[in-house]
Amino acid sequence: MAGNIFGDIFRLSSFGESHGVAVGGVIDGCPPNVPIDIAFIQSELARRKPGQSKITTPRKEDDIVEILSGVYNGLSTGTPIGFMVRNADQRSGDYDNMKDLYRPSHADFAYATKYGIRDHRGGGRSSARETIARVVAGAIAKLALRSSGMNITAYTSSVGNLCLDKPYGELDLSKTEDNIVRCPDAEMAERMIELIDRVRIDGDSIGGIITCVVKNVPVGLGEPVFDKLHARLGQAMLSINAVKGFEYGSGFSGTELRGSEHNDPFVIKNGKITTTKNHSGGIQGGISNGADVYFRVAFKPVATLLREQSTVTGKLEETVLKAKGRHDPCVLPRAVPIVEAMAAMVMLDMVLMNKSYL
Amino acid sequence: MAGNIFGDIFRLSSFGESHGVAVGGVIDGCPPNVPIDIAFIQSELARRKPGQSKITTPRKEDDIVEILSGVYNGLSTGTPIGFMVRNADQRSGDYDNMKDLYRPSHADFAYATKYGIRDHRGGGRSSARETIARVVAGAIAKLALRSSGMNITAYTSSVGNLCLDKPYGELDLSKTEDNIVRCPDAEMAERMIELIDRVRIDGDSIGGIITCVVKNVPVGLGEPVFDKLHARLGQAMLSINAVKGFEYGSGFSGTELRGSEHNDPFVIKNGKITTTKNHSGGIQGGISNGADVYFRVAFKPVATLLREQSTVTGKLEETVLKAKGRHDPCVLPRAVPIVEAMAAMVMLDMVLMNKSYL
Amino acid sequence: MAGNIFGDIFRLSSFGESHGVAVGGVIDGCPPNVPIDIAFIQSELARRKPGQSKITTPRKEDDIVEILSGVYNGLSTGTPIGFMVRNADQRSGDYDNMKDLYRPSHADFAYATKYGIRDHRGGGRSSARETIARVVAGAIAKLALRSSGMNITAYTSSVGNLCLDKPYGELDLSKTEDNIVRCPDAEMAERMIELIDRVRIDGDSIGGIITCVVKNVPVGLGEPVFDKLHARLGQAMLSINAVKGFEYGSGFSGTELRGSEHNDPFVIKNGKITTTKNHSGGIQGGISNGADVYFRVAFKPVATLLREQSTVTGKLEETVLKAKGRHDPCVLPRAVPIVEAMAAMVMLDMVLMNKSYL
Amino acid sequence: MAGNIFGDIFRLSSFGESHGVAVGGVIDGCPPNVPIDIAFIQSELARRKPGQSKITTPRKEDDIVEILSGVYNGLSTGTPIGFMVRNADQRSGDYDNMKDLYRPSHADFAYATKYGIRDHRGGGRSSARETIARVVAGAIAKLALRSSGMNITAYTSSVGNLCLDKPYGELDLSKTEDNIVRCPDAEMAERMIELIDRVRIDGDSIGGIITCVVKNVPVGLGEPVFDKLHARLGQAMLSINAVKGFEYGSGFSGTELRGSEHNDPFVIKNGKITTTKNHSGGIQGGISNGADVYFRVAFKPVATLLREQSTVTGKLEETVLKAKGRHDPCVLPRAVPIVEAMAAMVMLDMVLMNKSYL
Repeated sequence: MAGNIFGDIFRLSSFGESHGVAVGGVIDGCPPNVPIDIAFIQSELARRKPGQSKITTPRKEDDIVEILSGVYNGLSTGTPIGFMVRNADQRSGDYDNMKDLYRPSHADFAYATKYGIRDHRGGGRSSARETIARVVAGAIAKLALRSSGMNITAYTSSVGNLCLDKPYGELDLSKTEDNIVRCPDAEMAERMIELIDRVRIDGDSIGGIITCVVKNVPVGLGEPVFDKLHARLGQAMLSINAVKGFEYGSGFSGTELRGSEHNDPFVIKNGKITTTKNHSGGIQGGISNGADVYFRVAFKPVATLLREQSTVTGKLEETVLKAKGRHDPCVLPRAVPIVEAMAAMVMLDMVLMNKSYL
Repeated sequence: MAGNIFGDIFRLSSFGESHGVAVGGVIDGCPPNVPIDIAFIQSELARRKPGQSKITTPRKEDDIVEILSGVYNGLSTGTPIGFMVRNADQRSGDYDNMKDLYRPSHADFAYATKYGIRDHRGGGRSSARETIARVVAGAIAKLALRSSGMNITAYTSSVGNLCLDKPYGELDLSKTEDNIVRCPDAEMAERMIELIDRVRIDGDSIGGIITCVVKNVPVGLGEPVFDKLHARLGQAMLSINAVKGFEYGSGFSGTELRGSEHNDPFVIKNGKITTTKNHSGGIQGGISNGADVYFRVAFKPVATLLREQSTVTGKLEETVLKAKGRHDPCVLPRAVPIVEAMAAMVMLDMVLMNKSYL
Repeated sequence: MAGNIFGDIFRLSSFGESHGVAVGGVIDGCPPNVPIDIAFIQSELARRKPGQSKITTPRKEDDIVEILSGVYNGLSTGTPIGFMVRNADQRSGDYDNMKDLYRPSHADFAYATKYGIRDHRGGGRSSARETIARVVAGAIAKLALRSSGMNITAYTSSVGNLCLDKPYGELDLSKTEDNIVRCPDAEMAERMIELIDRVRIDGDSIGGIITCVVKNVPVGLGEPVFDKLHARLGQAMLSINAVKGFEYGSGFSGTELRGSEHNDPFVIKNGKITTTKNHSGGIQGGISNGADVYFRVAFKPVATLLREQSTVTGKLEETVLKAKGRHDPCVLPRAVPIVEAMAAMVMLDMVLMNKSYL
Repeated sequence: MAGNIFGDIFRLSSFGESHGVAVGGVIDGCPPNVPIDIAFIQSELARRKPGQSKITTPRKEDDIVEILSGVYNGLSTGTPIGFMVRNADQRSGDYDNMKDLYRPSHADFAYATKYGIRDHRGGGRSSARETIARVVAGAIAKLALRSSGMNITAYTSSVGNLCLDKPYGELDLSKTEDNIVRCPDAEMAERMIELIDRVRIDGDSIGGIITCVVKNVPVGLGEPVFDKLHARLGQAMLSINAVKGFEYGSGFSGTELRGSEHNDPFVIKNGKITTTKNHSGGIQGGISNGADVYFRVAFKPVATLLREQSTVTGKLEETVLKAKGRHDPCVLPRAVPIVEAMAAMVMLDMVLMNKSYL
């Protein structure tokens, strides 16, 4: 209800502010006997952590996850998995000049008005550090999904107006982690990195798009009518900081097609029903049809800029802000594992729910 | 969990198949003492009903809503509002040839595989008739919101490649209902109607986009982090039949901007904090900031075509389908009130939730 | 949230007032392919209906259930099952003298104050007619549980100070339906009926206790820590009108025992782990252990009396009430199927939830 | 769903095993601007902690709570409050002989069978240490309720067959904390302590009853029909380890009364509607009526005994268990603050929910 719990059966309760003691969460409903591979969780955190390359914020966070419960002899026990990552390397002083001031297009004003109180340090709850809990829970969801063969991969498909036009099927997604912008096309990656670096030098920021593909999805996931698979994926993605849009399958561009072009004909292949193409994005009537599920997530440019902006204070004074602190010029590279994490939580939740029908 | 309940405090439990006895729902959590204006509910149903113009399906449904409980002397009592609309004018026979067959890009195959059983008549639960419950509940949500001054208006902003490029602020939204395609620009409406008619004659279908604007939104609605206002709106819209994408504020196109262009500067105006522009779509950090909330919803072309398509049966035979029945060539005109209804339910739910903080 | 939805996966949304159009509900999450035996549902309704004997209210309600959706060719389809029972034989006039008046120990004052509005006719939402939705949903839950072999039986174990002291194991529960008070001991039943009849003639009412036994329960049902099997059963029973207490296994009397007397030793029997006795009531640590689950539910005497009582009006005037209308002198006989229905819904919900671990 | 989340708006997600790293939780939905008085929370923990007197387990736990998030400058911020208490003074070795063995009337067998895995050390998740999260969250709920004037007090009203027969109104509840058994009647307390000490020396255990009273309850709390105030209180209490029964107001004994005796007449007093007595336990139709809410909670004798018991192992062997470790002979004294904590969470949740109607 108050917005910090995600999922129906596999449920994450997330907590933590940027400059508080720790960020973390509790996972209720993780199936028992899942091998909880801490090294894997840590490697997922490494993909999201700041300071990993020249195009991310230089802020250093080691982000060591501590599992507090729910795991015994390396296996989940079916009881809640509590976990946390202590905050460190905080320079709360960097935020002193923002105490009474509302950063443009940031959550400051909305939080202060909604709650009548605000922890301004580092953005408080609206900080990107909140996504640590998502990545940990998503890593555990991936571990729980391993035996199903389901596979979730995201990559940066556009930065600013640099757009990788090729469909994902023509890309070698195993190359996504080969470069710091997480684009599987090496040449495009180069250009994206250059653009982000230019933007960074300007003290500015830039948006982009992440594409995510889920392979080996069983038929039957998703709960019509309100919890259609893509509706749940959509909420999950839109809940990530800075996300402005979500589309799956043919998405917005599919609106321009005629039905006769858009429909995916069914055929029999190897004795199984499949489709000849996949405008549906692997989902029909809100339920997975066995084809790849794929979708795109739009991220706006980061709101915090290392340049002057005019704004106001809580005391209704107009003022000028120049952020200090260490900030990402582009959120995309670090958002790739977050998109995967949210997708993993949704897919696992739908798998668990679907078991009740069997 | 099983997907037919929507909302947290204002909760709709929806039921009904196309060719069953009735479609309807139960609303739990409607505040007491809301005037339940049946004529208004009926007028909303009239906006969604088939057969209302030459560009919608000629199927006749009178769709008279019957309120079964929760209203006394014209006011809601705080107890559940049960309601239903009986099905009529069913031509189940039109679907006899589809009994064992899976229509391309329709929910047939996914439902049959998920549940191991399917009510094929008229699409069963995946029929557009399901949206009747949404429109009724949305109308009641609108009635409950009336005293707040909040105002929700949607319109058709594109059909196929015909796109109304003007921002909503330059349109006279009071003219939306003046034409059968529900586009507030008369000239564009004319062209859209022509296009849909051409598509209809071809036995084909076409997609499009609906834009929705919510005015007079109080600051503070939305629950970070997972139930951000736009995440809830996104799920709501993506749960509507045929929706493939959702974006709010600057949306996908905002990804191409730099932060310095995208950010909405705060200023003081008439002693209140406001922004000079609204790329944020009235939502910052997942919470409404008092500016207009606006978003766009992408609808694919209707899957059912009045022309031959190759497909398969449940017995793994390839076959050819030519749908009979009466179908919409374009879902947009009738989807406008559905988008508004889902928006109204989300906004009311967020208002009610927000009261717990006060 | 607003209290009219019950269950997590098998979810009932209930609606309806005594003198409104209908009472009914929507069941979401009923597994597909369950034979929906309408005659069985109707027979369960017959067990709860008024007018079935001289010790129940003479009010006539035929209570014919109409299934509105979710069933095709006699089987559940996995989609929501909407249902309703139309209200009839209403004598709203009987309640005219209660319009502005609060009946002692009834819900009138609390409802009027909570909601600021009240449908006084027949008790409105607080009427026993509300339990019709429970019985229908419970009957469907029983049908869904049939294949599991689980068996749920309740009976009247005390009326006033007439208490059937024998443990359920010494009773022949198949005889419960042989008499109008639903007590499996014929002699005690006779005495109970006499007592109720005496109370009825006095225009008074009397309370009692219902015992419920669930046999063939698989090990593993119940979700620690907050949704322990007995906690969910407890909430379910306490939600029934007029219930004042719940105990399972050794219950309140077990508090007087020492641990060495109370503990149920484990032994091996036929190669399976079992206990030599069952003070645990079949539940340990909140999870079923395979033994019979049994519990007792306390019902207070009905509040509505056919004799004078002093009370007050909403206008703060003291007055005297003499109820007209037709009322039960003792709720127990008709409550037996309601207790079973609530138990069936809880047990099924726990079965469905438990599937997610497998 | 999986049972470790409690509440609708004020929501506790609890985690932790006895011999894991820590126990704790996340509270979502705590209203903002509540003074979070750590010393008070700590004092509530001191009331539940072991080793506090000769009649509790001599196990030492310091139980220092660490607040991880959601509090800024001593006030709640409306964001999730993460907290934990590290485990210490674990003697996991004490449990080595229980590794493959199921303690009678304990959760061991049920957990092992449900999840296929069990953390046997110290009872794992079924340990009484789990209640730490309840006490912390309950203390925060009490702090949030302070401004309302609502007051929640529990006390030990029976141990074994020693029963404090006086109604709570004749007791001085301010004396509850004056003795180690938490019974406000000094003489009865003396006898209870003696009994518990005798039982302890026998290596045995004993049950009892806790009574809880909530004063200054506003009219209108509770959500009919399934979330009646007493139904929610009942679930809350039944979810506490070792609880076997719950009754409110007249409870089980009220079943013996006639309606004319049981009904609570309304009268006008000081211009307000009130009742002359309170068999209703302050709740009518599931909604608080402004009178004191009171209820009784039955606790069975602790299952772990310091004497020999015959039992079985997971390998289906019969064996004899003699528990080592340090255990409570009677759970009652330490359960008093737990009952209050659960009551506080329920009352606050109902207050927050009720705000949506206003």
